[in-house]
Amino acid sequence: MKQHDTLILTASCESRLGTVDAVTGYLYEQQCYVADMQTFDDARAGYFFIRVEFRRPEQGEFNEAAFRDGFAVRAQKYAMDWELSERSHRPNVVIMVSKFDHCLNDLLYRYRTGQLAIEIPAIISNHPDLQRLADWHHIPYYHLPITPDTKAEQEAQLWRIVQESNAELVVLARYMQVLSPDLCNKLAGRAINIHHSLLPGFKGAQPYHQAYAKGVKLVGATAHYINNELDEGPIITQGVQAVDHSHYPEELVAKGRDIECVTLARAIQYHIEKRVFMYRGKTVVLGS
Amino acid sequence: MKQHDTLILTASCESRLGTVDAVTGYLYEQQCYVADMQTFDDARAGYFFIRVEFRRPEQGEFNEAAFRDGFAVRAQKYAMDWELSERSHRPNVVIMVSKFDHCLNDLLYRYRTGQLAIEIPAIISNHPDLQRLADWHHIPYYHLPITPDTKAEQEAQLWRIVQESNAELVVLARYMQVLSPDLCNKLAGRAINIHHSLLPGFKGAQPYHQAYAKGVKLVGATAHYINNELDEGPIITQGVQAVDHSHYPEELVAKGRDIECVTLARAIQYHIEKRVFMYRGKTVVLGS
Amino acid sequence: MKQHDTLILTASCESRLGTVDAVTGYLYEQQCYVADMQTFDDARAGYFFIRVEFRRPEQGEFNEAAFRDGFAVRAQKYAMDWELSERSHRPNVVIMVSKFDHCLNDLLYRYRTGQLAIEIPAIISNHPDLQRLADWHHIPYYHLPITPDTKAEQEAQLWRIVQESNAELVVLARYMQVLSPDLCNKLAGRAINIHHSLLPGFKGAQPYHQAYAKGVKLVGATAHYINNELDEGPIITQGVQAVDHSHYPEELVAKGRDIECVTLARAIQYHIEKRVFMYRGKTVVLGS
Amino acid sequence: MKQHDTLILTASCESRLGTVDAVTGYLYEQQCYVADMQTFDDARAGYFFIRVEFRRPEQGEFNEAAFRDGFAVRAQKYAMDWELSERSHRPNVVIMVSKFDHCLNDLLYRYRTGQLAIEIPAIISNHPDLQRLADWHHIPYYHLPITPDTKAEQEAQLWRIVQESNAELVVLARYMQVLSPDLCNKLAGRAINIHHSLLPGFKGAQPYHQAYAKGVKLVGATAHYINNELDEGPIITQGVQAVDHSHYPEELVAKGRDIECVTLARAIQYHIEKRVFMYRGKTVVLGS
Repeated sequence: MKQHDTLILTASCESRLGTVDAVTGYLYEQQCYVADMQTFDDARAGYFFIRVEFRRPEQGEFNEAAFRDGFAVRAQKYAMDWELSERSHRPNVVIMVSKFDHCLNDLLYRYRTGQLAIEIPAIISNHPDLQRLADWHHIPYYHLPITPDTKAEQEAQLWRIVQESNAELVVLARYMQVLSPDLCNKLAGRAINIHHSLLPGFKGAQPYHQAYAKGVKLVGATAHYINNELDEGPIITQGVQAVDHSHYPEELVAKGRDIECVTLARAIQYHIEKRVFMYRGKTVVLGS
Repeated sequence: MKQHDTLILTASCESRLGTVDAVTGYLYEQQCYVADMQTFDDARAGYFFIRVEFRRPEQGEFNEAAFRDGFAVRAQKYAMDWELSERSHRPNVVIMVSKFDHCLNDLLYRYRTGQLAIEIPAIISNHPDLQRLADWHHIPYYHLPITPDTKAEQEAQLWRIVQESNAELVVLARYMQVLSPDLCNKLAGRAINIHHSLLPGFKGAQPYHQAYAKGVKLVGATAHYINNELDEGPIITQGVQAVDHSHYPEELVAKGRDIECVTLARAIQYHIEKRVFMYRGKTVVLGS
Repeated sequence: MKQHDTLILTASCESRLGTVDAVTGYLYEQQCYVADMQTFDDARAGYFFIRVEFRRPEQGEFNEAAFRDGFAVRAQKYAMDWELSERSHRPNVVIMVSKFDHCLNDLLYRYRTGQLAIEIPAIISNHPDLQRLADWHHIPYYHLPITPDTKAEQEAQLWRIVQESNAELVVLARYMQVLSPDLCNKLAGRAINIHHSLLPGFKGAQPYHQAYAKGVKLVGATAHYINNELDEGPIITQGVQAVDHSHYPEELVAKGRDIECVTLARAIQYHIEKRVFMYRGKTVVLGS
Repeated sequence: MKQHDTLILTASCESRLGTVDAVTGYLYEQQCYVADMQTFDDARAGYFFIRVEFRRPEQGEFNEAAFRDGFAVRAQKYAMDWELSERSHRPNVVIMVSKFDHCLNDLLYRYRTGQLAIEIPAIISNHPDLQRLADWHHIPYYHLPITPDTKAEQEAQLWRIVQESNAELVVLARYMQVLSPDLCNKLAGRAINIHHSLLPGFKGAQPYHQAYAKGVKLVGATAHYINNELDEGPIITQGVQAVDHSHYPEELVAKGRDIECVTLARAIQYHIEKRVFMYRGKTVVLGS
């Protein structure tokens, strides 16, 4: 019921009287049934966000192109950014990894069992280690080694694969390389990284070692869109794990794995369900 | 901004095309600005719920009576149950206690500091112990002792106070008496109890002792509307606390206090913000 | 450092003056270094528990048999139940599953990556579905179908595999069959089940459906030793997950998977690290 | 049982064979019953920590001075730092506040009900606002206003009160002044501050506003010993609270209050139960 014949409409614009009605009035006019809806109105910034899941009319044919044309007129009045997609659409997601496989393994399990409604046209790694895992899931594995000298070239290859895969999303599932500003720009808004700390604490390399040195009693993971500043992109979701003095860095690494996996998977879920709006360096996540 | 001149409209009815538009279309027509909105459509039961916070028109006068009349026509079409209230309304809440004071103390603090936007016209107890705490907050304290013989009479007094206080809500903040079916009926939908277990586990008396006997590794608290069956009413919210083998019953009692306080306060907050819909022995809580 | 040459000594007995010294004094006498130690003294029941990780003497040879003989004398004085094992010992664990694979997949990942220091000599299932997953990990998969008529015979086969595998532990990783009292007895203290509810709430079949019907706001998972009463065995650890009205039973099922996996893995970890003492229908878990 | 006639012995020293036996052997020799014990051996730093709760001998008289003398000899052999105290000892705790009263209110409740086994000889504030709350609990309230010019003098007065109160602990319960390095030094190891962020994230002023600007999805609180660097002292415990895009700074402030209270109270509990060892800029917390 929830997915069959269901579409998702998201929109955002400056706050003005009538934005909600522009969406809901149109849906009613088109005889579309609203199955789920959330709004957020940022009273500080004067910005409005809406996400609606709706079902096509039960009778008659639904002409999506005509629906779009009709909505575009309404949206234009409010200068809305908007997007329409099928609930059942399975976006292509390219996964990037290095040697750590826990996030990859978790994502592949969710992919294989349908918990994550995605296609994975490619796994890209700067190491050969995780080839066998990819093979078992029948997913092409691209080993693109990287050195300081070959970084530009490697990123070019990487970008080509992303494009040829029609990837709507790139997931850095513990990919241990810093992307160039150019590639960050190209991937803006459609690349999610998992960082193994509660950002903004412990940016950069070896956050568990930093956490150990500092003696914190909670560690965590942060899933965020990448941008040009390392570990500074808009945060989508965060997870947390209690620790204590007895955890050496290696044990923090081990302790943190589960929360990294769950946090990254949740961020991807939010993204593909069109719940996440990037906005002023932050995110609005509707209906999470 | 959030509270000033803001109203809350809630409605529920059988699922039908047009229910959303009946609300949002009307608000737009009345030039009311939608500040916050959530819906839930129960696809199994075919039932629809909506909660909207909206602001009066910035220009012109807002005639609430006329607004109500106008909406009533639309609501009738869908046989909606609906309610309109001011965001800034502070409902009268009668608190009932016995001897344990942690929940009362917590509620009084939130009341005193404005975190809970309520008035407390009366505190009722079957014991005299908490009089001084009430006095300090300048709240009338009614000591209504109870024995098997006087239960009916005591409940009659209690009910009179609730009525004379114009109480919109009664909170059983660790009131250690079982209410009669008659009183339960009278209070249906407007009396919240805190039970110190993760219901449906450990109903009835001494849940922490039951938890100790069972050796559970998590204890918790459940805030629920009361109904005719002990500890069976619709659950509003629950909280949880990790424990271990070293906690004897008295220590579970101590450990559980914080989570009881927080859970009860949260339930009251949801209720007075009109987020909770009772429905089929359960609750829908919008925008929590 | 933590595992190399490290042994684990656990003991329990009635509370008496001298029990701690019986252990620590002996370790010192044997020039063994105490690396980690916890005790619990149940003041209600008058029972004492201790777990020590210690390192062999740095100089000289360590004769484990002689160590055992020496300790046995001391332990006898207090009628201690005790056990000595290598920290690096990898016990044989037989995993039983039906069709749901999330716990199995998770355990196999932790096994494959060394996070769970176990060997898995056999996976037993009443369905053929998870053969391929077992194959990929090079683990023998025994498909033992079961019908009311063949239950006794199936359990006999199952028991044979457990014995031939020298299994120290049997894990019911969502095995959807009730074991016979006889098999429960045979497996007493060495079979861990994961039940997908916060026991004692929602025992028996379809706990997520029960949770949906009840409208709880928290679901969870309970890892416990099996005993003769269904879902009544001593609880090792529990996990919890917040849910709301929008989660239908299927979604509770999906939501609960992660917490089931993590909770079961944690219980196994505690068990193999010799942290868990079964006692009066409950558990003491030291140093968790 | 737990508190009556129970003492707490804590000790730490460089890791060496025999440290455990030095403690447990002596307790046995003195016919003292070990009721609770934890150790931690920091394998990286080569440092050992132990905390024992024990009961005096049931027969005969217990001479504490003699006990101390006897233990001092053993402790000296290992160059142990050690401390002996009564379980039932209620230390004097001076509380410092500014205008925010939630932590103070919470601590006073726990004090009044015996949940926190402390005496509060003085409440010190740079503002007069919380006098009435102190009065109700019959606790002397010292209003010590502060300006840039009078800071040194104010701190001198403050220090005098701390000394005259025989305060074993000073709690900065949202005291919104930075202490001078000199006062920090004087209070080293016996002053606990609550900072309303998950340190090391969001040090300094207005952490909730910083959290809002950054768009984090979790906020929290950190209880730590103060030292000379602002918000950098050894962390005792931390708490966390989920938030989302809809929380403006004022709402984060409101959301965070409960977790601040609970986190601070827990840190004080650990401290007065002698569970916390400061060590290399971090803490070891035994048996928490």
